[in-house]
Amino acid sequence: VTDPSHSPQVVALAGGVGGAKLSDGLQAHLGNRLTVVVNTADDVERHGLLVMPDHDTVLYNLAGIEQAELGWGIEGDSDAAFRQLVAYGEEDWFRLGDRDLALHIVRTARLRSGARLTEVCLGAQAALGLKARILPMTEAAVRTQVRTDEGWMEFQEYFVHRRQDPDVREVRFAGAESARATPEVTAAFDAADAVVICPSNPLVSVAPILAVPGMREAIGAARARGTRVVAVSPIVGGKAIKGPADRMLTTLGHAASAVGIARLYTGLADVLVIDEVDRGLVPEVEQLGLQAVVTDTIMTDDASRTRLASVVLEEVSI
Amino acid sequence: VTDPSHSPQVVALAGGVGGAKLSDGLQAHLGNRLTVVVNTADDVERHGLLVMPDHDTVLYNLAGIEQAELGWGIEGDSDAAFRQLVAYGEEDWFRLGDRDLALHIVRTARLRSGARLTEVCLGAQAALGLKARILPMTEAAVRTQVRTDEGWMEFQEYFVHRRQDPDVREVRFAGAESARATPEVTAAFDAADAVVICPSNPLVSVAPILAVPGMREAIGAARARGTRVVAVSPIVGGKAIKGPADRMLTTLGHAASAVGIARLYTGLADVLVIDEVDRGLVPEVEQLGLQAVVTDTIMTDDASRTRLASVVLEEVSI
Repeated sequence: VTDPSHSPQVVALAGGVGGAKLSDGLQAHLGNRLTVVVNTADDVERHGLLVMPDHDTVLYNLAGIEQAELGWGIEGDSDAAFRQLVAYGEEDWFRLGDRDLALHIVRTARLRSGARLTEVCLGAQAALGLKARILPMTEAAVRTQVRTDEGWMEFQEYFVHRRQDPDVREVRFAGAESARATPEVTAAFDAADAVVICPSNPLVSVAPILAVPGMREAIGAARARGTRVVAVSPIVGGKAIKGPADRMLTTLGHAASAVGIARLYTGLADVLVIDEVDRGLVPEVEQLGLQAVVTDTIMTDDASRTRLASVVLEEVSI
Repeated sequence: VTDPSHSPQVVALAGGVGGAKLSDGLQAHLGNRLTVVVNTADDVERHGLLVMPDHDTVLYNLAGIEQAELGWGIEGDSDAAFRQLVAYGEEDWFRLGDRDLALHIVRTARLRSGARLTEVCLGAQAALGLKARILPMTEAAVRTQVRTDEGWMEFQEYFVHRRQDPDVREVRFAGAESARATPEVTAAFDAADAVVICPSNPLVSVAPILAVPGMREAIGAARARGTRVVAVSPIVGGKAIKGPADRMLTTLGHAASAVGIARLYTGLADVLVIDEVDRGLVPEVEQLGLQAVVTDTIMTDDASRTRLASVVLEEVSI
């Protein structure tokens, strides 16, 4: 990194809203030197169209058009088509805006025409003028399923339809065994000067990425070369900033705290960034073999996204 | 028809705007005693979705939500999704409204799930509260293609993209040989007390319906039973009311007049309804073996649709 002609490359692992916000902050610093590897195990078919909630949340955030309040969807989007879909008898619990729907339509059409998922996603990113790249973790269909007291259900059924109400007893990633990290993902890790694990749910956003055969090996190879891995805790003061990560950690036998996160990332990450409110947990985190970095991790606006990203990049000397 | 307990059934053959307007007038008189058999050879895949211009034009007219000025699409529909599709690099010459798009999405999804086209169309009609039924002429993919001086092209390429500019030298209905009239269509003709051929383009709206094996036979069987067939001329004063029918008749060697229409429907129809301006053509029409009925055939509003429908129904004593 002392070679001034070298432009350091960063790979971020991301799920939905939290991952999208930090990715946006990283893009502000890195531009096209950032590659986001995104979870695709939340993807779901709605009305015959492939919807990719995590990819699209990152996409819209990096394009600066995300719906600010909810974190997903497009700001100011209308829903004329969706209301008409419901009038035709379609389910109404997974709301899709009109401009958002266009992406699902075009993606589904291009996939059916034989294009690769990665290629289709990169095309949409180029159309929206992104500087960074977002890579689906795999071309294969991997689907997160959760077991509740009612049995197994698809992730979006639990997450959107059931509003994360039932306790999660078990998680599995159907199709992961036969999936494979894409050549683009593998090449990104090969070229990475640093890897960032975004403040996404470790159990259903980061874990499916790591469950893809070849992914842990690619990160391990990068670390063996000296590439540092920095994770940012999605748990602050024992609570998830958004989503059910805290409850899910508890019902699955983990600690809903920065220490619980540290335990999950031991052997994978070198550094864990935790929030000021968790400063007292530094000794426990460091005892687990991770370097703890304390800062304000709550991203409420563009400035706080960029600031957290700069703290993360400082830790890897970028 | 003298049995007062018998509710006379009418089958109309229709293409797009002209057929939709008369069908709407007929529905006002007949309610659920009307079945419209609609041309599907204009159907086209756009953005991976099945679009059925003629079915949907009739649908929106019978639902009372058609875009009044253009005759197709839904009145006041927005186009947020379409503009976004174009931003993703999709072609921009076949405009689709947001509410309209919902139909193409739901139709495509249900067909891919294994539903029959007829079933899917009837479902959409029920959702929009139609009284009459609209039946696709066949379940099979029949596609109108036209030969111009530039060679063969798909119908919508000629009709929408090229704005009907090139002269049509030849017409063919790809897939018609192996298509079959649906059981619903056959049953409708079996039960028909009258058949109406709407003022649609005889060469590319009515002809593909008649090209489906079993269709002419079903109409012939109904006529043999005494069912009368009334056609309404789409040519008024030598001009098509809408669309390229007049030029197409000429370049394909027919007369662009009510007489040309009579010649095409000889042996199929019993009555031809022609416009007041064509009163002078009555002898020529009758010489071709068709009874000529003269009335105002221009449908500019609901009242004129209903009035023309009543003239048509009087001719068949309904």
